[in-house]
Amino acid sequence: MPQTVSKSAEERENRLKGAAKILLSARNILILMHKSPDGDTLGSAFGLCRALLKLGKSAKVICSDPIPKRYGYLVAGADFDKPDLIVASDIATVGLFGDSLEQYAQKVDLCIDHHPSNSGYAKYSFVDPSAAATCEIMTELIGLLGVEIDKNIAECLYTGLATDTGCFRFSNTTPKTLRTAAELIDKGADNAKLNKLLFETVSRGRLEIEKMALETLEYHMGGRVALITLTNDMYEKAGVDESETEGIPSIPATIEGVEAGITIRENGPGAYKISLRTNGALDASNICSMLGGGGHAAAAGCRATGSLDDAKRAILAAVEKQLKGENG
Amino acid sequence: MPQTVSKSAEERENRLKGAAKILLSARNILILMHKSPDGDTLGSAFGLCRALLKLGKSAKVICSDPIPKRYGYLVAGADFDKPDLIVASDIATVGLFGDSLEQYAQKVDLCIDHHPSNSGYAKYSFVDPSAAATCEIMTELIGLLGVEIDKNIAECLYTGLATDTGCFRFSNTTPKTLRTAAELIDKGADNAKLNKLLFETVSRGRLEIEKMALETLEYHMGGRVALITLTNDMYEKAGVDESETEGIPSIPATIEGVEAGITIRENGPGAYKISLRTNGALDASNICSMLGGGGHAAAAGCRATGSLDDAKRAILAAVEKQLKGENG
Repeated sequence: MPQTVSKSAEERENRLKGAAKILLSARNILILMHKSPDGDTLGSAFGLCRALLKLGKSAKVICSDPIPKRYGYLVAGADFDKPDLIVASDIATVGLFGDSLEQYAQKVDLCIDHHPSNSGYAKYSFVDPSAAATCEIMTELIGLLGVEIDKNIAECLYTGLATDTGCFRFSNTTPKTLRTAAELIDKGADNAKLNKLLFETVSRGRLEIEKMALETLEYHMGGRVALITLTNDMYEKAGVDESETEGIPSIPATIEGVEAGITIRENGPGAYKISLRTNGALDASNICSMLGGGGHAAAAGCRATGSLDDAKRAILAAVEKQLKGENG
Repeated sequence: MPQTVSKSAEERENRLKGAAKILLSARNILILMHKSPDGDTLGSAFGLCRALLKLGKSAKVICSDPIPKRYGYLVAGADFDKPDLIVASDIATVGLFGDSLEQYAQKVDLCIDHHPSNSGYAKYSFVDPSAAATCEIMTELIGLLGVEIDKNIAECLYTGLATDTGCFRFSNTTPKTLRTAAELIDKGADNAKLNKLLFETVSRGRLEIEKMALETLEYHMGGRVALITLTNDMYEKAGVDESETEGIPSIPATIEGVEAGITIRENGPGAYKISLRTNGALDASNICSMLGGGGHAAAAGCRATGSLDDAKRAILAAVEKQLKGENG
């Protein structure tokens, strides 16, 4: 089934009303989240679940991975034997269901999502890539269900909006995103409390590995290139896993004057994952493709093998080539 | 003159219309900013200046300190000999005028501000402490002037809104703040570009001193207290001044499980400035008052003398007393 992107405002509205109708006609609703759940899949799934409970339906949310402790305030649900409707929230492809949810891959009745890469695996899909978060769509959808958004639902939906936009900092933030957030605060979402929890709390381990990463910072090509390294040893010493190093690969490219920010992550013996972020005219995808990788113009990745110095030399040579216009 | 806080929506509206009338009746308008100018004083002053220019008036903005390079895109103005109106934007007290603007301290005709501490030094003041930023008020005021907000004005006003709220993360962010930001983006403010410039660009020196500060991180009382130190030596080595270490004193209190986050800043030979941030029930103001300082419940400060170890011992003892409830 092809991906569903609305063509006009009216068509979009009708399509979303169709999703509301499907939900209203069901009794026991099972809601799926993607693996490694983030604020948006959690917020949109539990927001919908809470709205369905208010309508007197039975609804519960499942995920192949445990729910991170900090998101505990979102959780709600009522058990039932057999679902008569299966909904996927914020899941772009069946590959993101995770092991224990694989059984549902061909059985999804309704999918609500904002990823442009949504593969259209559900019987009925509402996908709006112009939405900053699935929670932005879900706020509208819950309105169409005739449910008054209460404080708990508002906090679920605010959580997804805020986390998927870096608290309204990323380029996906639109006037509609900000107005939706305003509406959710009006409905009772405690944005000050949620922002502190979501954006101003770091683990000791995270701070430790960030410090270690900064200690490896090196500049090349007169400061136009900055590079940091993350080794397995650092993860062990800091006692963190991948989920706690989010954002670190963005650091080098935020430095004034840096055009190419590189992060080399040790990834098994003699193997490295390289992340490249670029500012201005430099094309990260072009550079990484020289080393067999790819991505977007501003963020791309590739792999390297050998010693750490080999990996550095390879990516720095590719960046230098591009900076000198030899392969631009 | 007493501080002017609006009592009702209508009273507030009339008061703001009064400010608009004063501006509309003037021809040559001089706009003052506070010393060490930040995004809000800059954005509100230049936003107003640009609106007045659109009305065919002469207007210019002055400040006792240079305008930071990164805010260069805000600048506009038209010169004139003698002002017939002097406006202060985002200046709470005459103490914030700075040396070269002191001459105007008793001559301000109109003050637009959001600081609750505004001392009412102007002939006519509009102060709304419920506004997250002076730019939030200025957006309304420019509407009352009958000026259509264009892209340049919108970018001035967005700058102040975003910087004074930590990009809509701080607790001063209200639904009105978010709706004002939405309106400014609708009018052409490039929020993606501005956020990248304002929040995702750090200097080499800033990153260097942040790394050095993290290297001094120590935990006390079983992880309930975290402490970092900033010495003059670090500032010198990193080549930064105070303006580049904003936010560093917040780090210790963001760590999971930490109830009291302390930053000790060397401040001359044998002298220290101590910043304390607390989470939960701990009262920072109470703790700092034990050492002759003060502040708010969640953020306070005090001074200490002697060796760095003396300063640490003094503040840690005060925190411990409070944690044990001996002085709660």
